[in-house]
Order: sequence, then structure tokens, then C-alpha cells
Amino acid sequence: MINLQDSFDDVVTITTEEQQAFEAQLTLENISAKSILIAAGKTANKLYFIETGLLRTYHLYQGKEANTYFACDQQIITCYASFISQTPSFEYLEAIEDSSVYSITYDQLVTLYKYSSKFERLGRLFAEKSYLCVVDRTLTMQTKTAKEKYLDFISQYDPKIVSRVPQHQIATFLGIVPESLSRIRKELATS
Amino acid sequence: MINLQDSFDDVVTITTEEQQAFEAQLTLENISAKSILIAAGKTANKLYFIETGLLRTYHLYQGKEANTYFACDQQIITCYASFISQTPSFEYLEAIEDSSVYSITYDQLVTLYKYSSKFERLGRLFAEKSYLCVVDRTLTMQTKTAKEKYLDFISQYDPKIVSRVPQHQIATFLGIVPESLSRIRKELATS
Repeated sequence: MINLQDSFDDVVTITTEEQQAFEAQLTLENISAKSILIAAGKTANKLYFIETGLLRTYHLYQGKEANTYFACDQQIITCYASFISQTPSFEYLEAIEDSSVYSITYDQLVTLYKYSSKFERLGRLFAEKSYLCVVDRTLTMQTKTAKEKYLDFISQYDPKIVSRVPQHQIATFLGIVPESLSRIRKELATS
Repeated sequence: MINLQDSFDDVVTITTEEQQAFEAQLTLENISAKSILIAAGKTANKLYFIETGLLRTYHLYQGKEANTYFACDQQIITCYASFISQTPSFEYLEAIEDSSVYSITYDQLVTLYKYSSKFERLGRLFAEKSYLCVVDRTLTMQTKTAKEKYLDFISQYDPKIVSRVPQHQIATFLGIVPESLSRIRKELATS
């Protein structure tokens, strides 16, 4: 189960009643590796709290997959732009590994927002964190070398993601070719 | 004065008491054109509600100014990444025109968040809107032609911004050279 207090310990105190109201909205789903949970062109209706597993979002650019986000155990993922705007998604959400996730629909989340200002606060903090993440990623893509991008990635992402995401997936996330990533990893291993 | 009900009419009902609590936190500031309100390297401590005027955010990239956002009458602006994370800003906030703005500090905004869940909701909605804005901008910069970028700009931005922001400032916002923007505008005027 996803414990909100553990996830947001430093910013908000969740009561037993609030945790129960949260759990009452969740649905457990077991997802096979390679399953598409949200397809481009469809509206993202669910947000996913990952119990165990690994998922990614990506979009197609010039006919190729470009990864935009990874999340694993105890993290949150959806096609967030589509979910918050309730408009068709430009990206896909796919399981990289067999995963066990708790889903909540958009309407259920709105119900929680109305139930307690704590949920509004968590929603605000998640939106702010998502904003910072995409701004940081945009600046990184614009201004950093391939090696700097990889060093940022391994310092900022969960070690489970760094070790479990296939190398070619990390390369498309960083916007570099797999051969460059392989060279950078060898350099770092021997330095 | 900034009327919250007018600004967020479709999503939340603001009581007279909530409007008064909001106004009590605001400070009116008259800003001269070309004034820097937030400098890169400093932490953004204030959010600005624009009464009248025109402001921009920009950062320096390869020694040149790259505009990232414009806002005018009745809109909101700050160096948002710095403001929400309370860490040093990578960008500048500058007045393009003489402007009259109401400022609120980070701590005052936190006070409002605690005062009523309506303010948490407005904070969440603003963070979500900011996320959508930066994702849309990133995709536009990656995938669209100069002409498409300009057509997006004039359809999405307030007509006052389109008409009042100097052309060379629009060009750096769109990531195109001023000569290209001039050519595109001529094409559109004669088509």
C-alpha cells in the first residue's frame, strides 16, 4: 500500500482518516512488461502510484521514441500534461517491467481535493515538483554536454532507475546516441 | 486592484473575506521600464500580480538573452522555478514598460495557503498551468518551424503582448533570428 505520510513526511501531516479516504479511492492493477497504459491521442484518465515495478513515458519524434520520464517503486507516474488538462496525450505511458500499481482516476482525485485541503496541498506540491523537473530537463538538454547530462541523470534519479532502465532507453531520454552513452560509461568506470 | 474572482471565475468561488485576506498581503509597487526585479543568482522572494504594464523573464544562453515568458495587465509573473523552490534563479525578471504591480512575498503566500484551501487550489491550478505552458513551449521549440512557432505565439498569447513586445524580444522568445521573424510577418501580412 502507498503510505502518504511516508511519501510526504516533511511537508504535511496525514491523519488516519485522510489515509483511509485516500486508500478507498485506489484500485490495484497488475501490469505486464511492455503494456501501454496510456496511448498518445487518448486522454490520461488515471494517475498511478507504483507499488513495485518500472514505467516510462515517451513520445514519438521524427519517427523515433524519445523518453521523457521514468518512475519506479513508491513513485508516481501518468501522462501528466494530459491528466491535468484532460485533453489528448502527446505521449505514451508504458511498463518497462512487470509492475504492480495503484490507480486513481481524475474524478476520484478531484473528490480527494474537495475532501481535505491536505490533498490540495499535495496536488500543488506535486505540480510544482513536476514544473521544476521539466524546466531542469529543458535547460539540461539545451546547455549541457552528453557527459554532464549522464552525470546529472545518475545523481538525480533513483539508483533503482539508473540500474534497471535499459541503456538504450537512458540514451533516448538524454537525447544522445547509445554509442556515446556507452563511451561515457566506460570513461567514468575507468576514471 | 487584483480581483481573484474575476481571475479564476470558472474554478473557485472567492468570498469577500478571502478577497480581503488576499488584498491585505499585497504591496503596490511602481516599476520603471528596464528595471530588474529579480536577478539571476538571487532567490525570487516575490510573486507579482500586474495591474498595468509589461514584464518578461529571460536567461543568458551562450552570452545572449533568451526570453522565456511575457506577462501584462492582470497576469502573474515571477521567476517561478526559483520562487517555488526558494533556490537561486537561473533567469531574470525585468519590466519592458513602466509597470504597476502588486507583490506578495513567498512567506505571505504560504500564510494564504494555510488560511484557506481555496488558495491552495489556486496555487495548484497555477502550478499545473505553468507546467502545461513549459511543456508546450518545449515541444514547440523542438518540433515546429519558425512560422508555426510565430502562429502559435500570436494565437496563445494575449493580443496586448503580441502588439506591445518589441519584435526582437519575440524573436529570442521563439528561438529564431529577427530577420526570419520579419520575413514571416511580411508573408502573413500579404497572404
